[in-house]
Amino acid sequence: MEFPSKLIEDAVNEVAKLPGIGKKTALRMVLHLVKEAEGKTTALTEALNRMRHNIRFCNTCHNISDSDDCAICSSHRRDKSVLCVVEESRDVMAIENTAQFTGVYHVLGGIISPMNGVGPSDLKIDALVERVAKAQGSIKEIILALSPTMEGDTTAFYINRRLSNFSVKITSIARGVSVGGDLEYTDEITLGRSISGRVPFQV
Amino acid sequence: MEFPSKLIEDAVNEVAKLPGIGKKTALRMVLHLVKEAEGKTTALTEALNRMRHNIRFCNTCHNISDSDDCAICSSHRRDKSVLCVVEESRDVMAIENTAQFTGVYHVLGGIISPMNGVGPSDLKIDALVERVAKAQGSIKEIILALSPTMEGDTTAFYINRRLSNFSVKITSIARGVSVGGDLEYTDEITLGRSISGRVPFQV
Repeated sequence: MEFPSKLIEDAVNEVAKLPGIGKKTALRMVLHLVKEAEGKTTALTEALNRMRHNIRFCNTCHNISDSDDCAICSSHRRDKSVLCVVEESRDVMAIENTAQFTGVYHVLGGIISPMNGVGPSDLKIDALVERVAKAQGSIKEIILALSPTMEGDTTAFYINRRLSNFSVKITSIARGVSVGGDLEYTDEITLGRSISGRVPFQV
Repeated sequence: MEFPSKLIEDAVNEVAKLPGIGKKTALRMVLHLVKEAEGKTTALTEALNRMRHNIRFCNTCHNISDSDDCAICSSHRRDKSVLCVVEESRDVMAIENTAQFTGVYHVLGGIISPMNGVGPSDLKIDALVERVAKAQGSIKEIILALSPTMEGDTTAFYINRRLSNFSVKITSIARGVSVGGDLEYTDEITLGRSISGRVPFQV
């Protein structure tokens, strides 16, 4: 792509580094900013800078937070005896949106993935073990809510082993056919596992 | 959507103002920036600010440029007697990519669109008339390369009327079936017009 201006080219190259954004989409965004008032660009860049430079993580659950203690960890309404282990802050938002979970979280900040050079020490797994140890039995259940992929299974397996010395119930989110999905179009592995992992019928 | 942090929420709201970006995509981008080093965000915002605050437009063709005269207008290789009128800088880039045009451009900066409150005075149409007048007959042909929409046709009609006093040939880019396209799947209006606007067969 030939650009009429070096400034446009630099901006497009930077925007195109964002996930899911190609050069064409980046160009569209940059030209949009050119058409809009200068204040719009300033508002965007200031919001991004303020966010990136001031963002903090909760000392307890390592979720993104505006303070050292996140709203969930510091809430008295949340059940501190149930801990849900997730990969990313995004997963916390997804689970919160279901309004089905009243416990607290532990954000690993990633998943064990040797292909991408991510090992257990890069994640908040030591912090999780420490948290469980410190709680001295007050944590009753740990729910592993990790992606149903090989990396997710590896991470779940590793965490399970690390926590084997503690008397805590370790569960995993249910896997099976999607609610509202069509059996016919469910992939074979999911369908096969949902048969082998069948559960008692509940009325 | 519930956000774990006001900073994240503000950043997502700003990013979601960009064209084609919804809240979910914006969140994905913002969380990507959180994971990356702070320097990445600074590089992005600096490139955007530098671009927006220093961008200039060519005095002659009104295309985006790093200086007061764009590379095309100041090139001695370009044929100044043929002027291609386009809506946006993006169109200049698209036509330049075809490598089929050796003349110069005139960027209107938009298209007449009463629905969006854009009238002839908001565009560089007066500047175009002035440019043609100043050239004193040295401009031989004006190609109207506007979108084949009602707004594009209106703008073309208006420009044609404004230039009727000058002895300049006014042409329009050819419309018809796409090269490599399938007749069967061409829309009826395009196919109909390509029949009524048929051209002599060339070997």
